[in-house]
Amino acid sequence: MRQIVAFLAAVLLSAAAPPPAWRPVPVPGVAEPSETIKAAPAAAWREIAPENLLVVELKEGGRIVIELAPDFVPVHVANVRAFARGGWWNGSSVYRVQDNYVAQWGNNEAKVPYPAGVVAKPPAEYSRPLAGLDVRPLGYPDSYAPVVGHVGGWPIGYDPKAGQAWLTHCYGFVGVGRDLAPDTGSGGELYAVIGQAPRHLDLNIAVIGRVIEGMPLLSARPRGTGNLGFYEDPKQNIGIARARVAADMPGGERPHYQVMRTDSPAFALYVKGRANRGGSFFNRPAGGVDLCNAPVPVRKTP
Amino acid sequence: MRQIVAFLAAVLLSAAAPPPAWRPVPVPGVAEPSETIKAAPAAAWREIAPENLLVVELKEGGRIVIELAPDFVPVHVANVRAFARGGWWNGSSVYRVQDNYVAQWGNNEAKVPYPAGVVAKPPAEYSRPLAGLDVRPLGYPDSYAPVVGHVGGWPIGYDPKAGQAWLTHCYGFVGVGRDLAPDTGSGGELYAVIGQAPRHLDLNIAVIGRVIEGMPLLSARPRGTGNLGFYEDPKQNIGIARARVAADMPGGERPHYQVMRTDSPAFALYVKGRANRGGSFFNRPAGGVDLCNAPVPVRKTP
Repeated sequence: MRQIVAFLAAVLLSAAAPPPAWRPVPVPGVAEPSETIKAAPAAAWREIAPENLLVVELKEGGRIVIELAPDFVPVHVANVRAFARGGWWNGSSVYRVQDNYVAQWGNNEAKVPYPAGVVAKPPAEYSRPLAGLDVRPLGYPDSYAPVVGHVGGWPIGYDPKAGQAWLTHCYGFVGVGRDLAPDTGSGGELYAVIGQAPRHLDLNIAVIGRVIEGMPLLSARPRGTGNLGFYEDPKQNIGIARARVAADMPGGERPHYQVMRTDSPAFALYVKGRANRGGSFFNRPAGGVDLCNAPVPVRKTP
Repeated sequence: MRQIVAFLAAVLLSAAAPPPAWRPVPVPGVAEPSETIKAAPAAAWREIAPENLLVVELKEGGRIVIELAPDFVPVHVANVRAFARGGWWNGSSVYRVQDNYVAQWGNNEAKVPYPAGVVAKPPAEYSRPLAGLDVRPLGYPDSYAPVVGHVGGWPIGYDPKAGQAWLTHCYGFVGVGRDLAPDTGSGGELYAVIGQAPRHLDLNIAVIGRVIEGMPLLSARPRGTGNLGFYEDPKQNIGIARARVAADMPGGERPHYQVMRTDSPAFALYVKGRANRGGSFFNRPAGGVDLCNAPVPVRKTP
């Protein structure tokens, strides 16, 4: 086995092409991202439709609010709404928390019958056509995708040659748990990223959106001691009281959020600021930024 | 102000050069990283010297073990040892936990006198000469550094043109808290990364090492509700019983760890595997990997 490892390493390394030369160009004096967000005009923000907000309430109190991305995963998002409307998650739990990876919830054994309207075997919505998307490239190299950038308030990877675009597994992003391929998962089991962006999952899993409120309710949890971070004792599970689409909630209970428009000048300046942190603390602006380290600003509707 | 934002954005964007073309080349059939680790021969591992292990014990029980990196930050590491030997951290606390960023500990107000041997104003050990380092390039683009790779078991960014190399802020990496530049921090206040790698801190802070045991004792904590995640009530602070250099501990108490040699064929295969996850779960290997998403394997000494 050791000989096989050494042999494979030699073969595989010989096939590796070096990445192209790139040098970050630090830009001093760029506005601090927090200042850019404060100064952004109303036109730089889009309201999230209540149909695209999933509100997950915990038994212990507190709620997790997720923005859904129907433009990327329409069938899975329709499923998520149907699951919520059918009460699927009510009384379920968060049953897996793996350090530097994900927190996962739903009905673990998938023994609960699907509510009406759920497509049991949705298509593999792992990417969508790039055509028609008004993408703004990030402007910096990425370790996974030919190009990364933003469209409609979402961070994406894309491949102009293949003509495909996809949502990326950044911190707080929510994916659909599934079994082995070709199963795509129905959307009844979901997870959120709580560590370094596991971008190797991109193009392998349906990403349905991102947590915009309540991340610590998932990230600040005891890590499961079972394999892959599953809680070994069901008493450790974190109870979910119910999950609703915001559109179905009484007006007074509904969350109202806005996302910065990623085609706005303010957002372009924000990204530049994230790539060139300055002020009195930083000695040296980086001159580059990782897609997942420039999270799209989200705010409560003023 | 809105006009200024728009104007600045236009100016700054015009200066942005597009990153060079790169396409990931997915390689199917690469050994799973976990299998490569299991199959790695004894020669693929190096023992961590007890002088390079800092053991932080919590009052509630449990310990955090940190590998120090004297080859990159010799003065700060000497300070850390002097702080430990002088009992500086005994009775101190973790007083800041910011979601998706850092957990920080030490003596918050820096009102405790420095123990003997501590250099009060160490040099800015933010990078070191590249010359003489037997670096293995990762082989994939990075969003921050001209090149990234590994040397001596450590992930680094480096710049062949400037001839400098530096440790990177990956998950679990430990940096030295400091005030505004040109202060570099003494090493008495430390933080560990608990979220997406804040690589913009690279070259702006002394990175002294990485947590190799006990990360959940820092990451699975209530987030501080004060500005920057500081705990607002001192009762929320997490008490530190003591911190010792492993070399000073009785033999029976000492942790013994090994790090995979990053110049070994096993490590090359491991990185290739992290960049091309396969098996029965993945539909499509990524063909690329982020430096911080290929953590150097660490194990207890068998």
